[in-house]
Amino acid sequence: MEKNKLRVGLIGTSERPNEPVSENVKKIAYRFGYLVGIEGFILFSGGRDGVMEAACKGNFDAHGINVGILPSNSVTEANPYVTIPITTGLGMDFRSILMIHTVDITVMIGGKIGTLLELVSTYQNGKPAIIIRGTGDFADSIERILIEGKYFDSRRNSEIFFVESPDEAIEKIKEIFHIK
Amino acid sequence: MEKNKLRVGLIGTSERPNEPVSENVKKIAYRFGYLVGIEGFILFSGGRDGVMEAACKGNFDAHGINVGILPSNSVTEANPYVTIPITTGLGMDFRSILMIHTVDITVMIGGKIGTLLELVSTYQNGKPAIIIRGTGDFADSIERILIEGKYFDSRRNSEIFFVESPDEAIEKIKEIFHIK
Amino acid sequence: MEKNKLRVGLIGTSERPNEPVSENVKKIAYRFGYLVGIEGFILFSGGRDGVMEAACKGNFDAHGINVGILPSNSVTEANPYVTIPITTGLGMDFRSILMIHTVDITVMIGGKIGTLLELVSTYQNGKPAIIIRGTGDFADSIERILIEGKYFDSRRNSEIFFVESPDEAIEKIKEIFHIK
Amino acid sequence: MEKNKLRVGLIGTSERPNEPVSENVKKIAYRFGYLVGIEGFILFSGGRDGVMEAACKGNFDAHGINVGILPSNSVTEANPYVTIPITTGLGMDFRSILMIHTVDITVMIGGKIGTLLELVSTYQNGKPAIIIRGTGDFADSIERILIEGKYFDSRRNSEIFFVESPDEAIEKIKEIFHIK
Repeated sequence: MEKNKLRVGLIGTSERPNEPVSENVKKIAYRFGYLVGIEGFILFSGGRDGVMEAACKGNFDAHGINVGILPSNSVTEANPYVTIPITTGLGMDFRSILMIHTVDITVMIGGKIGTLLELVSTYQNGKPAIIIRGTGDFADSIERILIEGKYFDSRRNSEIFFVESPDEAIEKIKEIFHIK
Repeated sequence: MEKNKLRVGLIGTSERPNEPVSENVKKIAYRFGYLVGIEGFILFSGGRDGVMEAACKGNFDAHGINVGILPSNSVTEANPYVTIPITTGLGMDFRSILMIHTVDITVMIGGKIGTLLELVSTYQNGKPAIIIRGTGDFADSIERILIEGKYFDSRRNSEIFFVESPDEAIEKIKEIFHIK
Repeated sequence: MEKNKLRVGLIGTSERPNEPVSENVKKIAYRFGYLVGIEGFILFSGGRDGVMEAACKGNFDAHGINVGILPSNSVTEANPYVTIPITTGLGMDFRSILMIHTVDITVMIGGKIGTLLELVSTYQNGKPAIIIRGTGDFADSIERILIEGKYFDSRRNSEIFFVESPDEAIEKIKEIFHIK
Repeated sequence: MEKNKLRVGLIGTSERPNEPVSENVKKIAYRFGYLVGIEGFILFSGGRDGVMEAACKGNFDAHGINVGILPSNSVTEANPYVTIPITTGLGMDFRSILMIHTVDITVMIGGKIGTLLELVSTYQNGKPAIIIRGTGDFADSIERILIEGKYFDSRRNSEIFFVESPDEAIEKIKEIFHIK
């Protein structure tokens, strides 16, 4: 296996019985995961359902590596496409912070409160984040509190980028890390 | 020592050489800490400088208990008013999550990105938060992304309250927990 | 409240339905907790049952401060004598490490595997530990693998002391930290 | 990439300037890592030097997957053979606990205090451990405190096995998990 692959964190809406993630958003997540696999980056996610599962499936279909940073100590919690389950036993929120520590960049699709925690943590840790617009929830509302459209606060720890599609997200990643 | 005291988490702006916290905001923090001590609640904070130190001083002057949830393993990091230093060794952000886990409610004064992480975590953990208006930074801007002026997302985990002063924050705490 | 109090971590056997802690060992734990309160040190423990509860009761009766570093997010897990519950949500073992980070010294009474983890962590973190002999389990067997009767390994991070009684443990603490 | 691969945690002595790991022990570690790669298991380790680096090199040479659970937030800390660096930012000991949570079994070669913490944690979490005899330090001394030669305490959470070589360790793993 090759070394020094870029570590991309996918953050986004999980599903609840009464809160399904729309098919369109899942398609976007699938496409993004697929492209991550094609590029040969490592895909990190919470390893569970909703946007995460769709992205993991895409990456799996592209023969990519799916690292799932799971809240509990059990692999049964992972979606079927996770190839490297990290069973942290840290619970939902500590494990979110751990995931941010272990990626080079995050890409956000939709997102409720857990995703917001991860976006805030990305910025706090000085790492870039890319948000795919039009995917709902915080992906579409967070811009309202940003300074100059890209910083959470006056400390300007890192930049938050907005793109319109998964393909554009990949282009942005390559631009940020000077890949090819 | 009495048991079952309410655990109040104070979150707010820390200081940096080029980013002093204003005297007015420190006065508000001092007053809030003082009132927490008078009421006999336990004050939890990050235990360091800025808003936290001002609140700890107020609480100390009221003979209150100051628990400081510190990032490093060294007590030297604590401000001079912390009576119970918890030297976590967890770093800035994991320790923020730990602090939210161990309080019943948070009160926010000003706040940059670390404070925002704690506010988001409070809501994610289903605990109420009170924000003192007019104290700057996220205390004054976060309302823009709230739903119905009080929820972070459609899951309505818990309520975020806005008040105008430290005295009003204490009244709100007593109202929420049905104290006297 | 005074500052800079010594932080003493009490580690020892918890109870299970079929594994009661003997009355004699509980008496020793109670006496130790009581003396910690009299000296004005802060008592840290896992905050639950068995040896921990007995020590917390002793400390409570001496009007001491009982900090309980709890595994779950719920205060209901604490024994009735814990005055400052730290509800970590970190689970049994991460919270054990946290407890060691936040004390100046540990004192061990009996002890099964969780206690052994805490003793090892004490030494790994370069902090002294005192073991009260004759209290069973690892308190009586660990000496067999120590080097020169007091070190876990050739790195000699810190010293492990053996004493015969709670009173002697307090004397040893005062000696180590040059108190009076 | 395939799913449901066994996750094997390698624990053992790290190096310090004045405490080199012997060439013989490194050969054993290399051989073990190599066999893990041949079998198609995932190798987890602390991702740093000494025994860990030797095992990672072996696994790398067999085209295996090397997950390194690192203490800091920086990939520069990883040895050159780690293919999936997990930069936890949790520090030495919290990250040891995390590593135990995320493996199915541990194999121990030599070992100073950090390794002992991991062995104790393995047993506390009810997971089997295999110790390769003759590799020094705790690998050769821990048996003295075990009950019936294989349990840490009367709770018999899991079994500790002793083997004479890396090849025998692999055979034991396959026996425990009924592989082929």
